[in-house]
Parts: sequence; structure tokens; C-alpha cells
Amino acid sequence: MSIFPPPPRRQSNKIMVGRVAIGGGAPVSVQTMTNAPADDPVGTLKQICLAADCGCDLIRCAVPSVRHAAVFAEVVRQSPLPVVADIHFDCRIALAAIKAGAHKIRINPGNMGDWEAIALVVQAAKDAGIPIRIGVNSGSIKHKNSNDARTIPQALCEECIEYVARFEDMGFRDLVLSLKTPDPLGTIAVNRLVAKQCSYPLHLGVTEAGPEEEALLKSAIGIGALLADGIGDTIRLSFTAPPEREVLAAKQLLRAAGLLRDHPVLISCPTCGRTSVDLEKIVAEINEKLRAFTLPITVAVMGCEVNGPGEAKEADIGLAAGAGRMTLFKKGMPQGTFAPDEAVAALLAEIERMVAGRH
Amino acid sequence: MSIFPPPPRRQSNKIMVGRVAIGGGAPVSVQTMTNAPADDPVGTLKQICLAADCGCDLIRCAVPSVRHAAVFAEVVRQSPLPVVADIHFDCRIALAAIKAGAHKIRINPGNMGDWEAIALVVQAAKDAGIPIRIGVNSGSIKHKNSNDARTIPQALCEECIEYVARFEDMGFRDLVLSLKTPDPLGTIAVNRLVAKQCSYPLHLGVTEAGPEEEALLKSAIGIGALLADGIGDTIRLSFTAPPEREVLAAKQLLRAAGLLRDHPVLISCPTCGRTSVDLEKIVAEINEKLRAFTLPITVAVMGCEVNGPGEAKEADIGLAAGAGRMTLFKKGMPQGTFAPDEAVAALLAEIERMVAGRH
Repeated sequence: MSIFPPPPRRQSNKIMVGRVAIGGGAPVSVQTMTNAPADDPVGTLKQICLAADCGCDLIRCAVPSVRHAAVFAEVVRQSPLPVVADIHFDCRIALAAIKAGAHKIRINPGNMGDWEAIALVVQAAKDAGIPIRIGVNSGSIKHKNSNDARTIPQALCEECIEYVARFEDMGFRDLVLSLKTPDPLGTIAVNRLVAKQCSYPLHLGVTEAGPEEEALLKSAIGIGALLADGIGDTIRLSFTAPPEREVLAAKQLLRAAGLLRDHPVLISCPTCGRTSVDLEKIVAEINEKLRAFTLPITVAVMGCEVNGPGEAKEADIGLAAGAGRMTLFKKGMPQGTFAPDEAVAALLAEIERMVAGRH
Repeated sequence: MSIFPPPPRRQSNKIMVGRVAIGGGAPVSVQTMTNAPADDPVGTLKQICLAADCGCDLIRCAVPSVRHAAVFAEVVRQSPLPVVADIHFDCRIALAAIKAGAHKIRINPGNMGDWEAIALVVQAAKDAGIPIRIGVNSGSIKHKNSNDARTIPQALCEECIEYVARFEDMGFRDLVLSLKTPDPLGTIAVNRLVAKQCSYPLHLGVTEAGPEEEALLKSAIGIGALLADGIGDTIRLSFTAPPEREVLAAKQLLRAAGLLRDHPVLISCPTCGRTSVDLEKIVAEINEKLRAFTLPITVAVMGCEVNGPGEAKEADIGLAAGAGRMTLFKKGMPQGTFAPDEAVAALLAEIERMVAGRH
């Protein structure tokens, strides 16, 4: 298996959100946020179930006012996933959400302002045994000079660390931190800074990243670069799109970063003027069929003799084309040569045998 | 404009591929590879023209044998883009491709073996005044211990640097280097290593990354993380898909990494239970319309009062929803409040005025 292993993960404290651990070596969890109206429990629960089916670990719901707390309580009662309450401006909403059973609350102390009121929220979270996410965004930054983009990561990190110090002064360390900017480079910079300054688990995201196509790339760069350096404990992709789209993309991102191995990894060449078989069609068919398998193997499908045999040999199993035929390799050994329309079936049969442990 | 600026780029030598500069501060160029059969000049040129229309800067074509050199010469003569010849195994093909007018050749010395023959290729490239890309891949690595994935980046880097030393001994420094692995973490690791050890421009790519959906994420992580650190002078995304798909995605990747500002950047919130307008529809409409503009501004479209006004103010222009209405901000100043179905037109009219310089 030639896949380069992920680097050591940054050591972070473990916190629990309901049954889901964040940090302390737990798998990187995926979260999203419902966008059904906050007074629509049925619509919200439908989105939560769909997100859960797509592999979501945690769900976040906005609680815009104290009067929404009853609906939120209903959502928490019926949700298959631990529920995070997203609270802004008013500490009374946070207290109501904690009372309603929130498994975690997310606040930005900067837009609550009143530290006496925040102290009440901290005490309530302590009593309920739930963590708090301190979430700061470049859009709501308080620091001076934040109009100079180069200083934003520094200012955002300083702001967050100041808030953390205040929570610690209150004896509260059940914290997750998020520091988001709408651009990947800012997100990378600010999280590299904060990762060095504390051991709290980090929630990663490029905020307000835009429509799905653009947001996917911004998130893959920003979150991906941090994960590739071992930074990050839970991730949320922010798309202007339905929540389940964020979850599906987040799972794909974890797979691409080597942090989730729940399916075979497919390596396939981009084809070129040497390719002697219809590789795009063959790869599409294999990719489709591989979704049914959970074996964390590496499958290589290569179009020619340049890197083909090398990659196919390095993979657990692979096909390499040459002169209109395809050679099946398994653990580096050729297993036979097939016509292209027989090669896919031969590959899948061999994987079936690997699954059955009959190899 | 709140977009965090890209970090300083790694200092690299400048080399010329026809009229296109790579390295030495030149913009990061995009390349792809044709996959029409190597003996089909019409199909190859059609792909080159399509790739050029999509924003491709350089094109690469496989030259599988000496007898393909005549077709390659025809492609070079008619190509709107500088053409790179992809050569493997046989130095005689490289000599033929140089004679046919290649603007650059790509070889992997490891699969050519014979350094006396490689010396002839180097001399021919020197005489023709064209650069050579030394391209090594984990699939064709020669070093011992390369079966241990952790040592692959180190081994791949050492192999490449050994080849470079041989070229330098021959007095040839007109080089681009590429070091590819099929996984983003390996690609990041190996390029960070080689970036420190030389000043040659680097061609980045996650090789054989698979079908488009998976390959896009692997490339965004691997290439994106390096670009975010200022490493990389030219990029190629490897999809098992038509060449123009690679180009479109590569351009999007450069935009997401802040290295290409040829359109407005759209920041839009992921929506939540607070959102009081159909933001997904509004954002889709704005995104579609923004494609017509080349002004490198930041446009924010936000669904509520939490980060909305902050982001909309930081952006050059923006809309922030609240209580079913949308406020238009420009350079931090509110310009008026609109019903959602009038807000898009108001935003676009304001952008038109910015374009016309009448602001």
C-alpha cells in the first residue's frame, strides 16, 4: 500500500459532545449546520437525518432567540446526532439552549460583549457538563488594524486567545476553538498560529466560502493544508448549498487527506496519447463498483507501460494496460492478462476474494 | 478587500517554454496533456485549442516512438500553445522530438538509464535552446526502501537531486523539476523537501489522482497546500477525464488559492436557521452573472445579521439580509435596502458602475 501515511496529529485535549469525542486522538469528525427555519422542527430533523445518513457526526442549529428554545429542545430530543446550539449576541439564548439540552454551544464572545453575562453561560455549561466552542471570524473581528488583510490572522488569533484566557480564569477548559476567514490562506495562517499557542481542539472551516464549486476548492486548500500538517480535530465545510452537500464533500476531503479509509482508494492515470484502451470508461465503471466495498485497499488502473506496472505493483491490486490488453497485478505479482472488456470483471472478482479473506 | 494576500513565492530560476515563462516570479502557469492518439494530429490539435480556450498556458503531448515525431512536428507547427514532448525509455525519441520543434521535453532519466544517450539529449536541448523537465514519480522510483511509504518522499527527492547534479555536471541548468506521488500528503512532503534543496522551478501535480471528483480534492489538497506556502511555478491536475476538465479545475484552484484574480471573488454564507431570504437562489444568480465581469473585487452575499454586515463591509461590495430585506453595502457604507428580488439587480448595477469607473 503506497499511500503516504498522514503525519502525526497535533496533540489536543479531548472534549465530548454527547457521545462524539473531539480531539485527543479521536478521528476527525464532520459537522454541518441545518438551514431549515429555526421554528421548523420537522424540517430541521429531516435535514439532520439526511446529514447523518451521509456520514455527519455532529449537527449545529441556529437558536436565534429565546422563543426558539422550545423548538430546539424538540430537535435535541429527536436528533440521531449530538446537537450544537449556535448562539449570537444574547447570553439569555445560550442559557435557554443549555437548558434545552444542547450537547455543545457555539458562541463568539466578541458579539456578546457583556462578560458578566458570559460568566453565567460558562457556569451553566459547567453545570450541564457540556463544552463551548469559541468561534471567531474575520467578519466580526474586534481588533484594530484588521483592515490590513496581512494582520488579520494575527489579530484573530490574539482575540481568540484573549477569550480563552478569560474562560480559563473562570476555571472552564471544556473548549473547542474555531478561527475562520473566508479565504483559505487566512484560515491556514490563523490556525497555524493558534495551534502553537494552546492545546484545545480546533474546529476548521473556511467560512462563507460561497457556492459549492468554489467553496469546495477553498475548503480543500484551507482545511486540507492544515489536516496535511496534522492540525484540526473537527471540520465543517461552508457551502451555500444544502447541508448534506457539505457532509458528502467533507467525507471526501477526509478520504483525500488520508484520514478516512472506509473505501478502496482508486489511483488512475490521466491518460495520454499512449493510451491504448478506453481508460476513462473503464475507470468510471470500476469507481462506481468500488463504492460497494469497505476494504481500505489501494486499486491502481493505469493506461500504459510508463508508470502503469510500477503503480499497479505498488497498489494492493491493479490493472495496467499495454498494447490493447490489461494485466492484473496483485501485491506486485501479475495474475494474468485480459481483454479490456474482461479486465474489470477479473479485477472485481479478485477484490471479492480479498474481501472474503480467500486470498 | 479582505482577501488574505498570498505569501511570498519561493524564489526560483526563470525558464522559458516558447513564450511562456515558468518560475522567477512569473504567474503560476497551467498545463495539461492531450490524450488523443499520438498519431492523430487533428484530434490532438482540437484538444489543444479547447484547452487554450479554457485558459491553458502549456500543452504536453506523448511521443511514444520515433515514428510519431512527424505527427508531433505537425502539432507543434499548428499549436496555439507551446508544446512539451513527453518522452520515456528511449533517448532517440527525445532527439527526434527536439528536432521536431518541441518547446520543452519531459523525461524521467530513471527509465532511460543510459547516461551517454541522455548526454546527447542534453546537448540537443542546449543547441535548440529549450528546457528539460526532469519528472520523477513514486511509481517509477529506483531507490531502495521505497516500499516503506514514509521513506518515499525522501527517496524521490534524493533521486531527483542526483539527476539534477548530473545535468549540472553537463553544464545544463535550463530545468524544471516535478516530483509526483498519487497521494497529496506524499506530494506535499516531497516538494517541501526539494524546494529547500534547489532553486529550479517546480511543476506540481498529484499524479494518477483518479476520476475527476476524487482527483480534484487530492489535487486541491496537495497542490493547494504547496501554493499556499509559496511553492510551485506551474501546475497540472491529473484527472481520468478530458484535458479541458483539468484546465478548468486548475484555473479554479489558482483562483481559490488567491493566485489568479480574473473575476470577482464571491463570499457567501452557508445559510442557517436564521436566514430569512432564499439565499441559495440569490447566490446562484449572482454567481452566474459575476462570470461576465473581470474586475478583481470581493463581493459578499450574507444571509443574516451575525456576520453579514461585517463581511459585507469588509468586501468591496455586498448584500446582507435581515428581516426579509437586503442591505447593499459598498466600501463599508450602506447604499440602500431592497426587497430580495430587487437586491440582485441593485448589486449588479452598482458593479457595472464600478466597472465603468463612475463610482
